[in-house]
Amino acid sequence: MLDICILGTGGMMPLPGRWLSSALIRYNGKMILVDCGEGTQITLRNVEWGFKSIEAICVTHFHADHIAGLPGLLLTIGNSGREENLKIIGPRGLNKVVECLTYISPQLPFSLDLIEVEEDAGSCIDVSGISLEYLMLDHNIPCYGYSFNIKRPGKFDVDKANRLSVPQRLWSKLQKGEEIEHEGKIYRPDMVLGDERKGLKISYCTDTRPTEGMVEFIKDSDIFVCEGMYGEDDKIQKAIEKKHMLFKEAAQLARQGHVKEMWLTHYSPSLENPDEFLENAAHIFPNTLASKDLMKKTLRFED
Amino acid sequence: MLDICILGTGGMMPLPGRWLSSALIRYNGKMILVDCGEGTQITLRNVEWGFKSIEAICVTHFHADHIAGLPGLLLTIGNSGREENLKIIGPRGLNKVVECLTYISPQLPFSLDLIEVEEDAGSCIDVSGISLEYLMLDHNIPCYGYSFNIKRPGKFDVDKANRLSVPQRLWSKLQKGEEIEHEGKIYRPDMVLGDERKGLKISYCTDTRPTEGMVEFIKDSDIFVCEGMYGEDDKIQKAIEKKHMLFKEAAQLARQGHVKEMWLTHYSPSLENPDEFLENAAHIFPNTLASKDLMKKTLRFED
Repeated sequence: MLDICILGTGGMMPLPGRWLSSALIRYNGKMILVDCGEGTQITLRNVEWGFKSIEAICVTHFHADHIAGLPGLLLTIGNSGREENLKIIGPRGLNKVVECLTYISPQLPFSLDLIEVEEDAGSCIDVSGISLEYLMLDHNIPCYGYSFNIKRPGKFDVDKANRLSVPQRLWSKLQKGEEIEHEGKIYRPDMVLGDERKGLKISYCTDTRPTEGMVEFIKDSDIFVCEGMYGEDDKIQKAIEKKHMLFKEAAQLARQGHVKEMWLTHYSPSLENPDEFLENAAHIFPNTLASKDLMKKTLRFED
Repeated sequence: MLDICILGTGGMMPLPGRWLSSALIRYNGKMILVDCGEGTQITLRNVEWGFKSIEAICVTHFHADHIAGLPGLLLTIGNSGREENLKIIGPRGLNKVVECLTYISPQLPFSLDLIEVEEDAGSCIDVSGISLEYLMLDHNIPCYGYSFNIKRPGKFDVDKANRLSVPQRLWSKLQKGEEIEHEGKIYRPDMVLGDERKGLKISYCTDTRPTEGMVEFIKDSDIFVCEGMYGEDDKIQKAIEKKHMLFKEAAQLARQGHVKEMWLTHYSPSLENPDEFLENAAHIFPNTLASKDLMKKTLRFED
């Protein structure tokens, strides 16, 4: 079971009634937060999933609307009783940004484990069983998209295990994916497991123009959370200039990436009612939703 | 006419339904903001007095709940079209704190004029006709209270002016408080004005224990905005330890300072309904209000 909650859907500045864009991912009781603008800790409190189990914060980029809430949130996580390290993942320069922002919150009861993402694309930062991948997007400062993947191994194949005489006492460890040396022999998970089954995938991309790399990056996502700064098709020049996207462009990516559903977010303050322009995306990719603050969904494995 | 709006009443962390403590003072269309925690720009938007005419931000101290909203607010003021300098007034170290916090909002269309308050008490920083005084309080880091004073000169005394043969062409300048040299003679405002009349005064003190200096500092305030972190009398040990106040202690100050009314603010997150404990203050100082977010009042000169 993989939960997602959209904490806010706003771009540029927080507004009464619309928090800044941010999302919370939860798996096995552990959470990853994506972005932390001013006020994110307030909307987080409304979710009622707590603060203590936030294991990592992924920062897309260093514009204030995506990171200015960090010092307050860290203090609040500290107040929740957390003492374990907290990972913060973000573009190159993260150490300096965090050092500056936390100048007013210097004492925390936990350590920060800062991971600067330095390549265009990379994979497999493991956070409590969530396999996290990232991709450099196309914004006016370095900005990354993230995807959150729950892998699902194949079914345990008793016949195969017996056929290969795998001792029964090793089955459970092999099923968990461990390779074992036992009485001079090597036993691998693929000796007892069937083909890897479809897992779960959420991808999250703001702020950016559409890029070719995104199609592969978001491929087959169960949910693709994508920026839609402007609903109206005629705002294309503004979108290009500000390095943002139209609803329509997000929909084209969703279709090319064969995602199951797309959730628009990161609306311009001028976009008062995103649903009004939903059709501009939905006629290209029907399974589009205009996210609302606090929209949630639980994803489950197939079968 | 001097307006005040309480933007928020919370201490420690912003909560759904309670913004962090902050106040907005307005005089002749110009505004001073006191403190800027996370979310202050959102509640400020609800006031609908605009952002562009904020002339100064007074920072009581550098705890995150009083200053973490600064980078976002400065960007929003920038977006409002402001190009004139903006004053920020705060304790020693202000330059470094602002430098750190604005690392993520480096380009603003206006300059910052940073004023570090280095003495225990001082007076008369003039901001658009508001005379601002400050006083060092007793918190666990350097923290200042502020008072906002509108002076009111005496009435113009025509008989006196005629008796002293003050040329009529000088009357208006003298009335405005200017001293004039004219045909070898010095003319002073007191030659044409009666005794100074009662002006308007708002004082604002968070976070602190009660101090002797506060009594004089808040003296005769029309409104004394004072922290009341705890409503219950039996939280005195906690108040002493955390360097905060009980409602009761705020009321004792209000009584000693002969203020007209006191507005409590900066409630602990544990204090869900401040009105429940209002009597703990009101039996000492009856004219006490437990502030609510967005509470406003307009003060007018007497007569």
